Amino acid sequence: MSGTVNRQIILAELPKGKLRAHDFKMREASIPQARDGEVLLRVRLVSLDAANRAWMQGETYRAATKAGSVMDAFGIAEVVESKAAGFSRGDLVLTMTGWQDYLALPAGHLAKVERIDPLTHLLSVYGIAGRTAYSGLLSIGQPKEGETVVVSAAAGSVGMYVGQIAKLKGCRAIGIAGSREKCDWLVNELGFDAAINYREADLSGTLKAAAPAGIDIYFDNVGGTILDTCLAQMKLYGRIICCGAVSSYDGDVPDRGLRGAPMQIVIKRLMVRGFIMSDFNAERDRAITDLKAWVQAGRIKVTEDVWDGLETLPAALVGLLAGENRGKRMVRVS
Amino acid sequence: MSGTVNRQIILAELPKGKLRAHDFKMREASIPQARDGEVLLRVRLVSLDAANRAWMQGETYRAATKAGSVMDAFGIAEVVESKAAGFSRGDLVLTMTGWQDYLALPAGHLAKVERIDPLTHLLSVYGIAGRTAYSGLLSIGQPKEGETVVVSAAAGSVGMYVGQIAKLKGCRAIGIAGSREKCDWLVNELGFDAAINYREADLSGTLKAAAPAGIDIYFDNVGGTILDTCLAQMKLYGRIICCGAVSSYDGDVPDRGLRGAPMQIVIKRLMVRGFIMSDFNAERDRAITDLKAWVQAGRIKVTEDVWDGLETLPAALVGLLAGENRGKRMVRVS
Repeated sequence: MSGTVNRQIILAELPKGKLRAHDFKMREASIPQARDGEVLLRVRLVSLDAANRAWMQGETYRAATKAGSVMDAFGIAEVVESKAAGFSRGDLVLTMTGWQDYLALPAGHLAKVERIDPLTHLLSVYGIAGRTAYSGLLSIGQPKEGETVVVSAAAGSVGMYVGQIAKLKGCRAIGIAGSREKCDWLVNELGFDAAINYREADLSGTLKAAAPAGIDIYFDNVGGTILDTCLAQMKLYGRIICCGAVSSYDGDVPDRGLRGAPMQIVIKRLMVRGFIMSDFNAERDRAITDLKAWVQAGRIKVTEDVWDGLETLPAALVGLLAGENRGKRMVRVS
Repeated sequence: MSGTVNRQIILAELPKGKLRAHDFKMREASIPQARDGEVLLRVRLVSLDAANRAWMQGETYRAATKAGSVMDAFGIAEVVESKAAGFSRGDLVLTMTGWQDYLALPAGHLAKVERIDPLTHLLSVYGIAGRTAYSGLLSIGQPKEGETVVVSAAAGSVGMYVGQIAKLKGCRAIGIAGSREKCDWLVNELGFDAAINYREADLSGTLKAAAPAGIDIYFDNVGGTILDTCLAQMKLYGRIICCGAVSSYDGDVPDRGLRGAPMQIVIKRLMVRGFIMSDFNAERDRAITDLKAWVQAGRIKVTEDVWDGLETLPAALVGLLAGENRGKRMVRVS
């Protein structure tokens, strides 16, 4: 083991309103011991996800993150000591690592992941981000060639793959993002057909101009008024894929999405469906095989936003919630 | 022909706020002539539907109903004169008859319906109401034995069949209706497991008591706050079937349903889907075969609310929108 202490970042208090970096505190603990059947893990990479903030609001698809405990997060960790059959030093696992250097876990529920280069791809295109885009768009959205796909938070970890996969499937891809630079990048680098800066544009009018016949599939990462605007422009038999509602995570603002929804949903016979990636674990292998083939053929570009050092995690999360990142944000811990 | 004039009821003015009977005016016109390829139809039964009011608000799944024209409606009509191949005097058709005694239509798009006794069943259990309940609940909702199904406007034309079909499929059926009498009828006559009078009860608390483990399927006929309340009590992988939003039809009240929806939809991975009956025309024969078998075996009870006389149509529609009816409301014109 390379360290002698276990640095841990605690959520000191549940945030009221917007999350701030000083809602977190660093503490030093001793490195835990692996007991029989357990492995001692050293955290390598921590995933930053908008959902981390939603976990502070209460129980979601997992128990709430509580004040006074180590901040919850997914990550990649490496086995540094094994007292469990089937696990050896150097094995990599994807698990809830939390914001800390070390943790000991029972091996029973751990799944090994292959060591690839770069390792960061396990958290981006071959991880939650890429697989969420893949299963949400393809299995729920069922896109057909020539259809129009709109995605919000389009420059984010999931959105950037949604648009690229839509293009691969012969669809027209329109991104909604929060800056001109992101929009230029979506169109010029990633091949989106159009991108709209919702902070500047009249979203409704610009969207109508970009998709005059309406939207077949809207992949929603944000909820709120952007969802309302897209809802109003859905085509008959359109599909809305609900992946997240980041507009309502950071603060007490009520979630305003889907105003007027029942009438629109009936009249246009829309399908609105929520999901999280693990609902599609059965298609994991196919997703990763396809994503790898597309990446290796240069048909999908991968962009990551990798920070260094456990101590950067609070600022990295606060910035993510403000929309700073382009592609998947993560922190390299070791 | 038994009459010499064609009475027609005109929507004199588009309603502002609640529809009133005097928004309509009766006029007398001459009986139209059937031209080559056309049939002259005498209207027998006119269907009253909450959607009739929504048509006045603008384009929906059909063109808007306009001021100054004969009020639009579905109905059953009988051929009294045919100048079209394949149609003879006495044939029955289901079509947009409007609120009038006679109309002439090109036969090209008309579909004959069989003459059954009572004829009214063609507009209730074997018509739009029964088939909407059947296809919405079974094809969209995919109920499994032991699941909990909640339906609003449960004593209405569609809702009363939704609950009965749910029971047939081994589900627990809970109805939401607008009076104690309707609730008693749902439980004591139709076999619902529970019924809640939303005008008296604390809906949220009563629903929680009736379905402590939550709702698997919510069949929504009303939108608005009832939809919001049910949304909050959906179970993981629950399904919301959007059939109508009657709470928003009669007036200018904004449609408030699905507040907070994006978070709920993602966390619980809900599927929300809108439809109208004609989306399921491909399964019409199966639906009618099943419904007939269930009615004949006494497993589904049929209740209808039949008024007499074309002149009663305005009051019949206004009353329907106020929730007066129990079962399918229709007007016998001839």
